[in-house]
Amino acid sequence: MMVERIADPDDPRVEPYRFVRERDLVGRDGRFVAEGQVVIEVALARGRFPLESLLIADDRLAAQQALIARAEEKGVPVYAAAPVVMDAIAGFPIHRGLVAIGRRTAEPEARTLLAGLDGPAIVVGLVGIANHDNMGGIFRNAAAFGAAAVLIDGGSCDPLYRKAIRVSVGGALVVPFTRVGAAADLPALAAAAGFETLALTPAGDDVLARLDPPARSLVLLGAEGPGLPADLIATARGVRIPMADFDSLNVATTSGIVLHHLASRRDAGRG
Amino acid sequence: MMVERIADPDDPRVEPYRFVRERDLVGRDGRFVAEGQVVIEVALARGRFPLESLLIADDRLAAQQALIARAEEKGVPVYAAAPVVMDAIAGFPIHRGLVAIGRRTAEPEARTLLAGLDGPAIVVGLVGIANHDNMGGIFRNAAAFGAAAVLIDGGSCDPLYRKAIRVSVGGALVVPFTRVGAAADLPALAAAAGFETLALTPAGDDVLARLDPPARSLVLLGAEGPGLPADLIATARGVRIPMADFDSLNVATTSGIVLHHLASRRDAGRG
Repeated sequence: MMVERIADPDDPRVEPYRFVRERDLVGRDGRFVAEGQVVIEVALARGRFPLESLLIADDRLAAQQALIARAEEKGVPVYAAAPVVMDAIAGFPIHRGLVAIGRRTAEPEARTLLAGLDGPAIVVGLVGIANHDNMGGIFRNAAAFGAAAVLIDGGSCDPLYRKAIRVSVGGALVVPFTRVGAAADLPALAAAAGFETLALTPAGDDVLARLDPPARSLVLLGAEGPGLPADLIATARGVRIPMADFDSLNVATTSGIVLHHLASRRDAGRG
Repeated sequence: MMVERIADPDDPRVEPYRFVRERDLVGRDGRFVAEGQVVIEVALARGRFPLESLLIADDRLAAQQALIARAEEKGVPVYAAAPVVMDAIAGFPIHRGLVAIGRRTAEPEARTLLAGLDGPAIVVGLVGIANHDNMGGIFRNAAAFGAAAVLIDGGSCDPLYRKAIRVSVGGALVVPFTRVGAAADLPALAAAAGFETLALTPAGDDVLARLDPPARSLVLLGAEGPGLPADLIATARGVRIPMADFDSLNVATTSGIVLHHLASRRDAGRG
């Protein structure tokens, strides 16, 4: 194993790991942080973004030989440090003992991304999803049900924020996504690439469970509470999930329910 | 308004609000804590458990007159305190400015609970759900899709833990639940009341989206990772949610997907 030892928290090789939480707040200069074994395995095996390095606690080295070998195959440097040094680098206790730094790559134009998708495809459009747990949950579901891409409006948070990546179990590193300037542009962008836009809203005319979805669907999800803007709903096909007399569903759960329905119809068509 | 002023954090009327977090850890002597406007509205309007009192920050009184009137109708005392006193009582900052204490009532026998359910009904069985976020999310979905009851095994956490109630948006106060001694007893208990047991598992023979569910279903959900015990799966009908090559779904999301499917079939039968 070609693991490089880090003894000094100020070692310049681990500079990108310094003060992880503070950097969450100010942004990261084109880098992201991936934590934990499962997420890093996903990043190495299927991630769309290159990893720059891995930092592993000494006491995890023996258990992580397969992962380290995989990193080496891909030319990703692996650093090891005593847990106390690791915590000093990050500025807080790294209980998982395993962190990686990755590098963002340029996002494609939404138009280009959609045009590159052939045949039946499910794309998710996110409007005002400002909560990192929800963003992560949506990407986890998008990966689980094979969504082809996620389009994200300016009012939504960053899928490559540390917590969003963690909650997505790596889905945010796998499912292609890009930003769109304004949510209002989404239906026209979708239509130009042969997608029909479905807007999830309690006032929708179509009931999800009875919906025979278009082969190419853009599914719009808005934040709990405000939901999708009325003008956006007006330009799309409204779809609702009937509920008992109760507060609306969590938006990540909603994404799971919708993607399950669309994916099961898509895959039945393939079968 | 008959709001009682609390000026002293040691006032015995607010004793149950003292040291909220510490009590989370040691248990609460038959009481639970409900936080925030929406949860307390649900508790007052539809909760299965009596509220003992409400504690409101002075600066929220004007905005919460409807809720206070509702509490008074139900004979629930309302206390008001300056935010700084409220924080001193609870031992941490109560940002929502609105907390209630409720009292648990005795849980029915699972056998009695099931026998009391007439006609088509969906019951959820939880095995080893130890995470309060997941427990809360499951109860939120159970309420949203009108599940008739939730049966909880000894390895699962408490739905009336403060965070579980909050994440459930009050669903944990609405949907009837009870403990069962051993998860292994669930299928026989269900069968005795005319329920068929469905076990969600990646190895299930039935695909959820094509499942024509029994009118009376007990749906078993296990923790992410370990899943349901094999001996339990062996005594039930296995149901799977096909996924792309990716880590399994979050269990709360899974509950939403399953309950949506079962509820849409149940309600189509009613229509």
